[in-house]
Amino acid sequence: MSFNTFGKIFRFTTWGESHGPAIGCVVDGCPPNIALSEKNIQIDMDRRRPGKSKFTSQRKESDQVKILSGVFKGKTTGTPISMIIYNNDARSRDYETIKNKFRPGHADYTYFLKYKIRDYRGGGRQSARETAARVAAGAIARIVLKKLIGKKFKVVGGVVQLGLLGCDKKYWNEKEIRKNPFFCPDKKSLKIWEKYLLAVRKSGSSCGAIIELRASGIPAGLGSPIYSKLDSDLAGALMSINAVKGVNIGSGMNSAFLSGEENSDEIVGIKGKTKFKSNNAGGILGGISSGQEILASFAVKPTSSILNSRNTINTKGKNTKIVVKGRHDPCVGIRAVPIGEAMMNCVLLDHYLLNRAQCD
Amino acid sequence: MSFNTFGKIFRFTTWGESHGPAIGCVVDGCPPNIALSEKNIQIDMDRRRPGKSKFTSQRKESDQVKILSGVFKGKTTGTPISMIIYNNDARSRDYETIKNKFRPGHADYTYFLKYKIRDYRGGGRQSARETAARVAAGAIARIVLKKLIGKKFKVVGGVVQLGLLGCDKKYWNEKEIRKNPFFCPDKKSLKIWEKYLLAVRKSGSSCGAIIELRASGIPAGLGSPIYSKLDSDLAGALMSINAVKGVNIGSGMNSAFLSGEENSDEIVGIKGKTKFKSNNAGGILGGISSGQEILASFAVKPTSSILNSRNTINTKGKNTKIVVKGRHDPCVGIRAVPIGEAMMNCVLLDHYLLNRAQCD
Amino acid sequence: MSFNTFGKIFRFTTWGESHGPAIGCVVDGCPPNIALSEKNIQIDMDRRRPGKSKFTSQRKESDQVKILSGVFKGKTTGTPISMIIYNNDARSRDYETIKNKFRPGHADYTYFLKYKIRDYRGGGRQSARETAARVAAGAIARIVLKKLIGKKFKVVGGVVQLGLLGCDKKYWNEKEIRKNPFFCPDKKSLKIWEKYLLAVRKSGSSCGAIIELRASGIPAGLGSPIYSKLDSDLAGALMSINAVKGVNIGSGMNSAFLSGEENSDEIVGIKGKTKFKSNNAGGILGGISSGQEILASFAVKPTSSILNSRNTINTKGKNTKIVVKGRHDPCVGIRAVPIGEAMMNCVLLDHYLLNRAQCD
Amino acid sequence: MSFNTFGKIFRFTTWGESHGPAIGCVVDGCPPNIALSEKNIQIDMDRRRPGKSKFTSQRKESDQVKILSGVFKGKTTGTPISMIIYNNDARSRDYETIKNKFRPGHADYTYFLKYKIRDYRGGGRQSARETAARVAAGAIARIVLKKLIGKKFKVVGGVVQLGLLGCDKKYWNEKEIRKNPFFCPDKKSLKIWEKYLLAVRKSGSSCGAIIELRASGIPAGLGSPIYSKLDSDLAGALMSINAVKGVNIGSGMNSAFLSGEENSDEIVGIKGKTKFKSNNAGGILGGISSGQEILASFAVKPTSSILNSRNTINTKGKNTKIVVKGRHDPCVGIRAVPIGEAMMNCVLLDHYLLNRAQCD
Repeated sequence: MSFNTFGKIFRFTTWGESHGPAIGCVVDGCPPNIALSEKNIQIDMDRRRPGKSKFTSQRKESDQVKILSGVFKGKTTGTPISMIIYNNDARSRDYETIKNKFRPGHADYTYFLKYKIRDYRGGGRQSARETAARVAAGAIARIVLKKLIGKKFKVVGGVVQLGLLGCDKKYWNEKEIRKNPFFCPDKKSLKIWEKYLLAVRKSGSSCGAIIELRASGIPAGLGSPIYSKLDSDLAGALMSINAVKGVNIGSGMNSAFLSGEENSDEIVGIKGKTKFKSNNAGGILGGISSGQEILASFAVKPTSSILNSRNTINTKGKNTKIVVKGRHDPCVGIRAVPIGEAMMNCVLLDHYLLNRAQCD
Repeated sequence: MSFNTFGKIFRFTTWGESHGPAIGCVVDGCPPNIALSEKNIQIDMDRRRPGKSKFTSQRKESDQVKILSGVFKGKTTGTPISMIIYNNDARSRDYETIKNKFRPGHADYTYFLKYKIRDYRGGGRQSARETAARVAAGAIARIVLKKLIGKKFKVVGGVVQLGLLGCDKKYWNEKEIRKNPFFCPDKKSLKIWEKYLLAVRKSGSSCGAIIELRASGIPAGLGSPIYSKLDSDLAGALMSINAVKGVNIGSGMNSAFLSGEENSDEIVGIKGKTKFKSNNAGGILGGISSGQEILASFAVKPTSSILNSRNTINTKGKNTKIVVKGRHDPCVGIRAVPIGEAMMNCVLLDHYLLNRAQCD
Repeated sequence: MSFNTFGKIFRFTTWGESHGPAIGCVVDGCPPNIALSEKNIQIDMDRRRPGKSKFTSQRKESDQVKILSGVFKGKTTGTPISMIIYNNDARSRDYETIKNKFRPGHADYTYFLKYKIRDYRGGGRQSARETAARVAAGAIARIVLKKLIGKKFKVVGGVVQLGLLGCDKKYWNEKEIRKNPFFCPDKKSLKIWEKYLLAVRKSGSSCGAIIELRASGIPAGLGSPIYSKLDSDLAGALMSINAVKGVNIGSGMNSAFLSGEENSDEIVGIKGKTKFKSNNAGGILGGISSGQEILASFAVKPTSSILNSRNTINTKGKNTKIVVKGRHDPCVGIRAVPIGEAMMNCVLLDHYLLNRAQCD
Repeated sequence: MSFNTFGKIFRFTTWGESHGPAIGCVVDGCPPNIALSEKNIQIDMDRRRPGKSKFTSQRKESDQVKILSGVFKGKTTGTPISMIIYNNDARSRDYETIKNKFRPGHADYTYFLKYKIRDYRGGGRQSARETAARVAAGAIARIVLKKLIGKKFKVVGGVVQLGLLGCDKKYWNEKEIRKNPFFCPDKKSLKIWEKYLLAVRKSGSSCGAIIELRASGIPAGLGSPIYSKLDSDLAGALMSINAVKGVNIGSGMNSAFLSGEENSDEIVGIKGKTKFKSNNAGGILGGISSGQEILASFAVKPTSSILNSRNTINTKGKNTKIVVKGRHDPCVGIRAVPIGEAMMNCVLLDHYLLNRAQCD
C-alpha cells in the first residue's frame, strides 16, 4: 500500500521522483480568502533547497514553486491548491553503477522487496527530494495559521546536535538560525561545527543530527484524543521524514529518568494568567495543547550514501561491495530543519481546524 | 475533535471512562474464519490489569472481556467484534477532593480547557484504564497475525529502564519477562529494581521507564510510504499511549551520534538468505520492513498522581496546592509493556493487510 | 473488508447481530456540553422498533437504549458515546430450516461467498436490526443540530408510495405522519393503504415503498466538493440502508425529463431575502446546500423473506426450494422512515462541523 | 470543507479550474508492475473530451494526459501517479458579463455562499472540466482491473434516455455505443435523437439524460458492509458527478412497485454454476457483489447554462436577469457516459483491493 496523503482535514498529497520531470503537492481543505503567493511559499523552499553551501548536496535546484490551482486574484478559494516544482539538475548517470546494488541502510532494498520494481535513479520516490513538496504544503499551513492565530504564532526549528557535537540551548537565538548554514541556534558553536563537518565530508563519511522544534502562540485545546493526540500526530509526522529514527516531546526519552515531582510542571496563576514553572510536557498534556510552548525534537541518522566501501548484495542476492558516488549531503539533518517545521505547521493547522469543528 | 478509532483497515474504536459502568472496544476489518475466544484474549488482559503486585495500583479489576458480536461458533465472521469490560472497583469518592483542582502534569487541565467539561472521577476518559480496551484489540491482532504468518511471528516487550536503573540487554530473556512483576528481561536486575521501586512508592513519588519492543517473523515489505510508513505509524501508535513522551526505532535518538559507516547495517547473502551485520535501522528502511527484527522503544514519564504536595490552580484559576490520594501506580511504565505490544500488533496487522491489498 | 463506521468527523460505529446478545453503537466526535438523555434518544428508537402494529414484524423488542459512556451529569463530554441495545426476543429456531439455503434476493448468499462463514440466525449482521443502532446515532445528531442551528431545524420523512399506491403530496401533513402506522403524510390515503397492505400480508408476499425526506432550516454552505458533496454523501448514506435500491435528490431521476428552463430554479430577492421559484435541485447545488429545503427520496425493495415458495440453491450448490417462516415485515419500507431521517441527520451534522472547520 | 480525494485504498485526488493553466489528478495506491502508458489512458480521455461533434460544447481541448510520476520503464511502481492536462482553449471573456450574477440551478450561487469567493471564469472548480481528471483516474483503474481479473472484466455505459426520448434496451449494442455521438446503445433511436437534440440546441435550451452502466466479470464478494457497501459507494460516486440528481441500482426506484416474488431473483444451479433468473438486484445483495452483472443508472439534469433569459440575483442580492453565452453542451448527459464508467471502475478496483486485504 502507498499512502501519499497527510492530514485529516487540512490534507496534502505529494508525488514525484528524484529524477522524474517534476515533483509536486496538492493541498486540500485550505480555508478560503487567505492571501497566498508563490513568493511567500518560496521563502520556505529556499531554506530547504540544496546547493546553497559546501555543507549540503551540490545538486543545483532552484526549487521554484508554481501554483496551478486554488488561488484566484491572490487569495485561496477553498479548492485544492496544486503546486509543481520542476527537477532541473538530475544526473541519472551517477546511479548507473549502483542500479543493481542495494545501499546498506537505504530504502533501495525494501522498496524493491515490496514493489518488485524500483526507480533507482537518485533514489526515486525514496529520495529526500520528496521533502520539497512537504515544505511547500507547510508554507501554506504557516501562512494560514498566521492569519487565524495572529502574530504571536511561530514555529522555529534549529539543529541542536551535529553528530558528536552539541550546542548550548541557553543561547538559543532565532535570528542566528537564519544566518548560519547549520541552522544552529548557538553562535558560539559555529566554528567547531564547521571544522567537524568539513572533516566528516572529507573522510567520505556522514553524520547524524538532532533538531529541536518550538511552536509558540498555540492556543490550548488542540489535539484529538485518544488516537489522534497532538503528540501522537506530531510523532507520526516527524517520523515520516526521511532518515528520522527518534522523536521526543518535551523531555522525551529523558522523562524516564525524572521523578514525579521533577517531571510534573507546576501551575501558578499570576494576575489571571496561567503560568507553568517548567515545560517537561513540551506543551502537551493528554494529547492536548496546554497553551505552553510546544517542544518536539527528532534525530536524523547519518545518510547511507557514503564514499567508503560497504558490503552488500545485488538484486540477484549475490555478495558485492558498494561505493556511492554522486552528490550527497554529509549531514542530511541540517536540511531537515525546514522540513520539521513544515510538518509541525501542517499538524498544528489540521488540529486547529479539527478543534474548531467539534468545540467551536 | 475526538478520534477514538485507530487503524486503516484493521481498525478498533475504544470507549468508556474510568468510573463509568464499563469500557469497551469495537474491532472492525478483522479477517473471517479465525478461531477466537474470550479466553485467548484474556491472556493479554491479565498481563495488563492492575492489583496483581504491590508495584502497581491496588484497584481490583478482574478485567474480564466479554465478546458481544462478530464471532459465531468460535470463529470470526468478518463483522465487527464488540468487546465489553465492566468496571467493578471504581471509587469515585477518592476524587471528590481534587475535582476542582488540576494535577500538574495531568490531562485534567487540558481536557477542561478543550471541552469546558470533564468527568473528574478517576481521570474519566484520560485514565490509563482506557488502555485495557487497546489490549483487547491487540490480542485479536496477535491471534490473527499468528494465523496469517505462522509460529515464527512474535512481539515481545520488556522494561529496560526503571527510573534511574537500567538493565543489561545482553541478558534479554523472554521467559523471565513473563515471570517477574517488572516485565524486566534481565533476571539480575530484579533485586535492585524491587528495592528501588519500593523506595519510590514509600516516598509518595513516582518514576518513569523505558520499554523495548521486539517483533520477529515479520515479512519484508510492510509499510505504506510516504505518510504511513511503518515506523511513522508505530511512532504515532506508541506516542498515543498515556504518559509516553519519546519513541525510538532501532538506534533511535542515538543514531545522531553514529557515523554513516557505523549506522548503515551491512548486508550479506549467506546460502541464499539475506543477513544484516547489525540492526541500527530497527528492521525498517524507508518506512518499509526489511525482514529483520523490528525494534522500537518508548519512554513513559513518571505519573503525575503523587502523594507529595504540588502547586497548582483550581478550575477558577486560583492558586492552591494538591495532594493526590487514591490508588496509583508508582511506575505506570511497568504496565505499559502489554499496551505497547498491543499497539505494535495492531500496526503490524494493519500493514500486513494493506500490503496484501496493493502488492499481493 | 468490513466498514462499520459512518461519517468523517461526526462518526458512528455500529456492531451486533440480530440474534446475538445485543447490538450497539459508538458515536465519536460529538460536540461537548450538549444536554443528552436516554429518554430523548428513545423517542426515535420507539418510532423504528417492530411489533407496534399488525403491519410490521411481530418480534417484540423494547429497544431500550442504554448509554455507557461519554455523558457526564446529563451533558456530552466530547468523548465517545457508547450505546447498547439488548436483544430480547430472538427466536433462532425459526432459522434452523433455512440455515443451509439462500433466500433469493437476500444478502445470505453474498455474505457466505465473501466471508465463507455466516451467522444465519435472523440474518446475522445483514439483519435490518442493525438499523436500530443507526437510529440511536441519528437521534444524537438531531439533538446536536437542534442545539447548533435552533428551532427552525427539522428533518421529517414520510412514506409517499406504498407498493403500487401513491399518496397526494399536496396534503403532506407532518402531524399525520406521527399518527398513522404507515408514516403516511396524507390522511386520505390511509384507508386504501391499510386494505392493500393487509392483502399483501395475507398473500404471504411483500411490497416496496418510496420514502421522502425533507430537511428545513439548513444553512447554506454545507457540503464538501468534489467527492464529499452533500448530495453524494446523502446518496451513499441512504443507499447503505438495507433494501434501498434508488436515491433521488430533488427532482431526481425525473430531472432527465425536464428542460433547462423548467429545471433551473429561478432566484428572486425579496426584501433582502433570497427566494427560489421552485426546488428541483432539492436544496443542493454543486454539492453544497443553498438554504432551500433539502429534499431526498429513496426506494425500498420488497423484502425477500416471503411465505411463498421460491427456487434457490443450498450451501452446497444444489437446487432446492425455500419458504421463509418467522416474523417478517410485509413492507420494510415503512420502518425505513426513522432510519432515513437518522442517516440524514448524521450527514447534515457531519457537514455542519466540516464546514465550520474550513470556513468558519 | 473541501474533499477532493476519492477512494479508500485506490485513491485519486483531482485539482484545477476550468480556466486555470491546467487540471490534474494524482492516483495513489495503484498496484505495482502494471503496464501503463499515456496512450492507453488517452483512449478514455478522447471519449469524454468536448468539441468532437455538434452535440457537445465547441470548446476545443485536446485533453492530452501527461504522466509526471509513478511509472518507470512503462510500468507502475506503486508510488503516486501524477497526471496533468493543460487547458488550451479557455475563453474567460465569455464570463465577464455574468461574473456578478448567479446562474439559476448552478453551483455559482452556493460556492459563493460557502467560500465568499469564487473563480467565476468558466465555472472555476465547479466546471464539468474537472471530470476529465476523473476519467484519467478511471482509465488507470480499468487497466488494473483488466490485469487483475482478466479479459472477462468490462464496464460499459450508454445513454438510455435523452430528455423525453427513451431507447429500446433490448437492442443494447456495445459496438454501437462507440460509434454514435450520443453513446446510444440502440441504433434505431439515433435519427430521432439527432433531430430532437438539434431542436433543443437551436431553441437555446438544454435537456437531461439517463445513463446506464453495466459491469461484467466482477467476482462475487466485493463490497464492505455496512457503511461502504458496494452499492452505497457506487451511489455516492455517481452522485458526485456534476449535474447528477438520481441513482438506481438494478431495478432502482422501480423496485418499490414490484412484489416480493417479482423482485427476488431466483437462483438455480446449472452444472455446478450458479445462475439467476433475473437481475433486479443489479448484481448487489446486502452491499456485496453476487457475481451477476452489476447494473447502475443515473440521471443527469439539463444544464443550467442556457441562452434563454432567467430571473436571478447578482452578488449584491439585487434582482436581475441572466442569459448565458459561451460554449455549452445542450445535453451534458452525453459526455457523462465515460465519466460514469470511470467512477464505476474506480469503485470496483477500490473494493477489489479492500476485499483482497480482508478476505484473501
